[in-house]
Amino acid sequence: MRVLGVDPGLTRCGIAVVDGGTGRKVSCVAVDTVRTPVDADLAERLLKVSDAVEGWLDLHKPDVVAVERVFSQYNVQTAMGTAQAGGVVAVAAARRGLKVEFHTPSEVKAAVTGSGRADKAQVTAMVMRLLKLQEKPGTADAADALALAICHIWRAPMRTRLAEAEQRAAELAKVHKARLAEARKAKGVTR
Amino acid sequence: MRVLGVDPGLTRCGIAVVDGGTGRKVSCVAVDTVRTPVDADLAERLLKVSDAVEGWLDLHKPDVVAVERVFSQYNVQTAMGTAQAGGVVAVAAARRGLKVEFHTPSEVKAAVTGSGRADKAQVTAMVMRLLKLQEKPGTADAADALALAICHIWRAPMRTRLAEAEQRAAELAKVHKARLAEARKAKGVTR
Repeated sequence: MRVLGVDPGLTRCGIAVVDGGTGRKVSCVAVDTVRTPVDADLAERLLKVSDAVEGWLDLHKPDVVAVERVFSQYNVQTAMGTAQAGGVVAVAAARRGLKVEFHTPSEVKAAVTGSGRADKAQVTAMVMRLLKLQEKPGTADAADALALAICHIWRAPMRTRLAEAEQRAAELAKVHKARLAEARKAKGVTR
Repeated sequence: MRVLGVDPGLTRCGIAVVDGGTGRKVSCVAVDTVRTPVDADLAERLLKVSDAVEGWLDLHKPDVVAVERVFSQYNVQTAMGTAQAGGVVAVAAARRGLKVEFHTPSEVKAAVTGSGRADKAQVTAMVMRLLKLQEKPGTADAADALALAICHIWRAPMRTRLAEAEQRAAELAKVHKARLAEARKAKGVTR
């Protein structure tokens, strides 16, 4: 499975492609930080993020896109910019028929470091170790994008099992409901 | 000037096209509410909003796009969805080379009702009066989209004058700086 991970942002947007192998093996295909000028129009900045992501989708052809879910409440203006960038990334992926999954920062941190409250340095260190990188991935945002992709790969088997179980349960419920209706009808006829 | 106004949202997204005439004359070209299913994937919902806006841009060919700026802090999850939808709208416009302006809800309310704290009923009533509409515009979101477009049209002359004044000031500053540098150089030579 090839995952494009995006840590959305306007000033710095982390973007990474990670391949998942057998077991917990993961390898880095590409990683970068997209930057847009602080003094540019918001729409122009969003378009730059969109163009960059579309370029990566065309070039690396991922199977799925993982985006960091914004929760932060401390700086509403920054959070809004981040949310807008995330929305733009999601649409670029959806337009290509790709599935988009959102993960919270604590899910991502927990997946790669074992703790949902790990700091940026820990995330970078673990990402480098897991992907056997010789160099730091440029920015904390780029490291986050890698961590996000790894998180997605590792959580995928669990998600698939959960989805299958839910589908099975829905089918059983349907069968049960149909039988119940039949039984009621039969009762009505004999009455 | 033809303005596409968008009150972004996932469950209900207000969209409207308004033409500005001479003076404060405005007329409604089209207005609607775009809805996306609550149980659909976030990326799918955003794509539906994006597709709808792109369709309107192609059909109505506005000169500029006005989007409501999200500020609300009371429901972070809803605010994030709204921000994401707004980002998607901005990119669709920017990709066509259209200018995108964001207006706050209180700017919009003040422009059409005279009060930044007007309620939804007041905004709807004023929008109907200003555009001479016989019927209510379906939803409060559709009325907001109309109000947003009107706000943009009425604020445009002021914005243009401001931009011209700023440009003039920047040019004067440049000339002044160049003369200052010349004077310093001349002084240096005579010393």
